[in-house]
Amino acid sequence: MIIDLINPARNIWPEISKRPEIDLEKIKPLVENIFKEVKKNGDNSLLKFTKEFDKTLLKSIKVKRKDILNSHNKVSEKLKQAIKSAKKNIEKFHKAQIVIFKKIETEKGVQCWQEKKAIEKVGLYIPGGTAPLFSTILMLAIPAKIAGCKEIIICTPPSKRGKIPNEVLFTADLCGISKIYCVGGAQAIAAMTFGTETIPKVYKIFGPGNQYVTMAKQYSLNYNVSIDLPAGPSELLVLGDLTSNPSFIASDLLSQAEHGIDSQVILVSISKGLITSVKNEILNQVKLLSRKEIALESLKNSKFIYFNSNKNASDFINEYAPEHYIISVENEDYFISKILNAGSVFIGKYSPESAGDYASGTNHTLPTNGYSKQYSGVNLDSFTKTITFQKITKTGLSNLSETIQLMAQAENLDGHMNTVSVRFK
Amino acid sequence: MIIDLINPARNIWPEISKRPEIDLEKIKPLVENIFKEVKKNGDNSLLKFTKEFDKTLLKSIKVKRKDILNSHNKVSEKLKQAIKSAKKNIEKFHKAQIVIFKKIETEKGVQCWQEKKAIEKVGLYIPGGTAPLFSTILMLAIPAKIAGCKEIIICTPPSKRGKIPNEVLFTADLCGISKIYCVGGAQAIAAMTFGTETIPKVYKIFGPGNQYVTMAKQYSLNYNVSIDLPAGPSELLVLGDLTSNPSFIASDLLSQAEHGIDSQVILVSISKGLITSVKNEILNQVKLLSRKEIALESLKNSKFIYFNSNKNASDFINEYAPEHYIISVENEDYFISKILNAGSVFIGKYSPESAGDYASGTNHTLPTNGYSKQYSGVNLDSFTKTITFQKITKTGLSNLSETIQLMAQAENLDGHMNTVSVRFK
Repeated sequence: MIIDLINPARNIWPEISKRPEIDLEKIKPLVENIFKEVKKNGDNSLLKFTKEFDKTLLKSIKVKRKDILNSHNKVSEKLKQAIKSAKKNIEKFHKAQIVIFKKIETEKGVQCWQEKKAIEKVGLYIPGGTAPLFSTILMLAIPAKIAGCKEIIICTPPSKRGKIPNEVLFTADLCGISKIYCVGGAQAIAAMTFGTETIPKVYKIFGPGNQYVTMAKQYSLNYNVSIDLPAGPSELLVLGDLTSNPSFIASDLLSQAEHGIDSQVILVSISKGLITSVKNEILNQVKLLSRKEIALESLKNSKFIYFNSNKNASDFINEYAPEHYIISVENEDYFISKILNAGSVFIGKYSPESAGDYASGTNHTLPTNGYSKQYSGVNLDSFTKTITFQKITKTGLSNLSETIQLMAQAENLDGHMNTVSVRFK
Repeated sequence: MIIDLINPARNIWPEISKRPEIDLEKIKPLVENIFKEVKKNGDNSLLKFTKEFDKTLLKSIKVKRKDILNSHNKVSEKLKQAIKSAKKNIEKFHKAQIVIFKKIETEKGVQCWQEKKAIEKVGLYIPGGTAPLFSTILMLAIPAKIAGCKEIIICTPPSKRGKIPNEVLFTADLCGISKIYCVGGAQAIAAMTFGTETIPKVYKIFGPGNQYVTMAKQYSLNYNVSIDLPAGPSELLVLGDLTSNPSFIASDLLSQAEHGIDSQVILVSISKGLITSVKNEILNQVKLLSRKEIALESLKNSKFIYFNSNKNASDFINEYAPEHYIISVENEDYFISKILNAGSVFIGKYSPESAGDYASGTNHTLPTNGYSKQYSGVNLDSFTKTITFQKITKTGLSNLSETIQLMAQAENLDGHMNTVSVRFK
């Protein structure tokens, strides 16, 4: 079931690094049509699509305060405590990301600086499906609040029982989000893009989702909206050696594989023996999983790769650019120092991916599909934008004047030259 | 020619804030075809398109070292000095943007941190057209170098004389960029997206361009490439009052208007008299501009808006979300404190936009078309991505274990629970 590779040559690395391809083009017409309808018919179209896709007749799109408060009584004390613990760590890590820039005098009389400002209106999409993904609310709502976004809304579909799960409502309320809308899929993304009678238009849309949501987020870019990340199926790459614990690694690979049949797990090993023992451990552990079928299916996309050179191993990992990267080798410092591309890195035997998925404090919204070559995961900056400022005195402008005028002249822009000359007439 | 508005009501602000619309959909098939050809035929297609669109028969796509060195003798000493002065300030301002994050202990034994890493391969597009835009090389190459990007390439079309202007070659060399390719338009963007025999594939593409380049950058997003910003025609909003100098403001508005016929200039004034005097000054000054026709045409898109309330004026400016925003009023602190959305802000009588276009140190690649609501202009961060790290001890994981397991259980992910339990078996 797993593809084995031994010291693969560099020229096949791009081929090995390819993720399972998903062709979204074929669902584009459907998504375009949903956008058209939501733009035209607003709330009515949301009710219609929710009936059609979620088999739910909504009385109201906005969740009532009463239902949000009720959720507090429906979630166990233990789970509430766990969510609060996770929140504390995520808050601590994201608050530490606040950066205050100093004012710089680039020339005498020329003061320049940057300021980060919150994006005023953001929309968080929380998928429904087989489980209530309340952890994603923590990952998106906490940095949005720290950044100071004024309007933070959540769209999430009804579960099969026709309602938003209590864990989701509780977590949203704990994070101080009161505008929760019971709508999912491409129609939720369209609603946040254009606004409807009930749902406000936002400037940036965050959150994971199925292929319709992914396509819809991509499509929203045509309407002055931005998005957190281009989404794709989740991935994990584990690096191991002789000193690794095969049972720990097997559990990590399986925790990724259980996400969905398109998840991808990679083991890069600088020990041949480890590969065999991890495989055996996987066979032992997978039997006990409730999502065993999913895990077995996604293991078909997985690759176990042996390298006899540390350099080749680390070069390959940078070429692959994993979303999650667990380093479980003796010589960890070497591999840490070589990292160029990765979403989130987990160092050592006791740093499983699930720590970062829930509770350590780092964000779990990360670049997949090789996008860690150029994208950051969601962090505090994702909810802000940077504005530059400059304040120039008369002396300052006089210091710059020759430079500006000569450059403007060489670019054939005499209007630009004039802005200086009129000031010194 | 200019549209006058007096205390416009809030409900028409979105209408007033609309930029001239450009329909790129109609050129999409052409761009798609160029991508297809470049992917298939590489360098040959670049030579073909350059002959077809730029009327130039290239001997080689890569600019020869000899030609780059020769450019040093063809640019005047004065201009070289000006470019070096600008470079010094841009370097100073962008170096000040380096951020080093501290390691955070979110729980005992749970260490988390962020690191910024350079995007390894970046492509800078420098447009050709009526003038050699060497200032844009400074704005893109300097932060790319400071970030530590390993491979920085420039694509720029031949001028009407069949060659890249010497100012462009000189500035690129001054910034330490040696891979310069003589190719422009959508074919240049396609070449950087896929790579050809000569031009390396990059991970992120930067730089302004005409509508074909804009469409091509948007299209490159389908191929695991990212881009700096969605591009649009340049804009300036000036805020003035009784104390403003009408002649200074007129020169600023004209410097924006001369860029292109689709440029947009807005004057927001809290004095009615200023509007009349700025108009008169514009009529005086425009006559003397070599790009007078362009400026007069783009003034048709311009609006002069009077507000009798500071609050309404600043609220409107945030709704408009200008690319460039000049604050030339007595009560500048009030308006600075109210800024939510802007690309780059110029404070005071002696801070013309052209200072930031060339020489003060701030970047001139900025969000247009209202995108300052959610996008930053190009800055050092544009050339990096942030990776998160975590290193957890056995005690640390034990501190997190209950939280992780309860949350994983509630999300129906028992494989995630196992990653903790196997470690404490």
